Amino acid sequence: MNYFSRRKFIKAGSVAGVSALTLTEIVTAAFTEAKAGKITIGQNNTVLFQGDSITDAGRKKDDLNANNTSALGSGYAMIAGSELLFKYPEKSLKVYNKGISGNKVYQLAERWDADCLNQKPDVLSILIGVNDYWHKHDGHYNGTVEIYRNDFKALLERTKKALPTVKLIICEPFAVPDVKSVDKTWYPEFPEYQQAAREMADTFDAAFIPFQSVFDKAVKLAPGVYWTGDGVHPSLAGAQLMAHAWGEVVKG
Amino acid sequence: MNYFSRRKFIKAGSVAGVSALTLTEIVTAAFTEAKAGKITIGQNNTVLFQGDSITDAGRKKDDLNANNTSALGSGYAMIAGSELLFKYPEKSLKVYNKGISGNKVYQLAERWDADCLNQKPDVLSILIGVNDYWHKHDGHYNGTVEIYRNDFKALLERTKKALPTVKLIICEPFAVPDVKSVDKTWYPEFPEYQQAAREMADTFDAAFIPFQSVFDKAVKLAPGVYWTGDGVHPSLAGAQLMAHAWGEVVKG
Repeated sequence: MNYFSRRKFIKAGSVAGVSALTLTEIVTAAFTEAKAGKITIGQNNTVLFQGDSITDAGRKKDDLNANNTSALGSGYAMIAGSELLFKYPEKSLKVYNKGISGNKVYQLAERWDADCLNQKPDVLSILIGVNDYWHKHDGHYNGTVEIYRNDFKALLERTKKALPTVKLIICEPFAVPDVKSVDKTWYPEFPEYQQAAREMADTFDAAFIPFQSVFDKAVKLAPGVYWTGDGVHPSLAGAQLMAHAWGEVVKG
Repeated sequence: MNYFSRRKFIKAGSVAGVSALTLTEIVTAAFTEAKAGKITIGQNNTVLFQGDSITDAGRKKDDLNANNTSALGSGYAMIAGSELLFKYPEKSLKVYNKGISGNKVYQLAERWDADCLNQKPDVLSILIGVNDYWHKHDGHYNGTVEIYRNDFKALLERTKKALPTVKLIICEPFAVPDVKSVDKTWYPEFPEYQQAAREMADTFDAAFIPFQSVFDKAVKLAPGVYWTGDGVHPSLAGAQLMAHAWGEVVKG
């Protein structure tokens, strides 16, 4: 059974059961299946979101202040960050977003000193990989899953060396099948990138956010276009879904 | 005991007790005290946020689409709206924001046909009043609390006539004392505007969001400047606090 027919089978077999659950329960269920560990937010912690356009989400690059709405953009990082600030007011957190549209993992590496290591984050969340596949798929980039895996591994080794106590969150790159840019030609190759991201989480003892499972469950409650306009970038509903999922791995 | 000395007394007497509670519990407590009713979100409902700059929050005025991040700005309306879209994916909601910076209640009235009645909202949330007081306080406007009350009443009568089944949410205008623009000179006059807003909720059988109680409780966990930069406009943490409070009056 290939990916698409398996999905159809899952849909047909479980919609009735799933719709009895709330989406919050569904998000939690995705984590239970993924056996994801949690990270603890400490006093005065600096929290840094890193990634591509999904993280960037139109942030104002010249606003260098922590916790500022415009500096955090208007995507999942802003919503998840504001939830942290709401939930832990006594911890004096500093939340930053340094995602940049279009980035692949090697482009994170190019700006890693300035945009990560020098920021000295206590909590570092990385969502990277969809462009590593997508740009290759569309003929704009000559990478492979091996390059993605090796570059990601080198980036994380460098991070752990500079910041030995950093608490890592690795986010699974995701795509919503049958929506605009994402069609059958993404499979089975794109999931190899997802597998590589999951390996990074295991290897570096990071919390892992199974975004693909989260979106796979969400499309049972509303169509894919409700959660993403192009299959890759979340809608506002999708950004809130991601923020809820992100919040699942963090405790006070 | 005047407003400020009473606040200090409450602070000194209850910080230890309060800090044992989470902020979510505190938000809920504010509602229990206010005995606020809830409104039910229905299938295909249109939800409209109306108000001043706090609601506006930099929204793109030429984006007329429902549920779009840029059309909803980056304040409490965007966060509360995204939470609705996340929580009720099966309801096919349409969320709009038509707040405009600087508005007082008479300015809502001037644009009410186009920006409210013609939108035919099923759920209408209004946060208005801080400018009605603030602009007068600063000598830019010649209004009184009677004008605010009468204009607000006329606006709601007009709304109920055009949209008899609309589900109303009246938000309490709020200010955070001792932060920048908000000093002792706001008291006891500003609370009269808050009282008028509360009367509107009672008169028109609206759900009421006691934002002042919510912020009063929040400043026991982090200083006022954590929640608002100028005493009036919420920070990102304050916007999420407001969104949580807003979400308390809505059920599926």
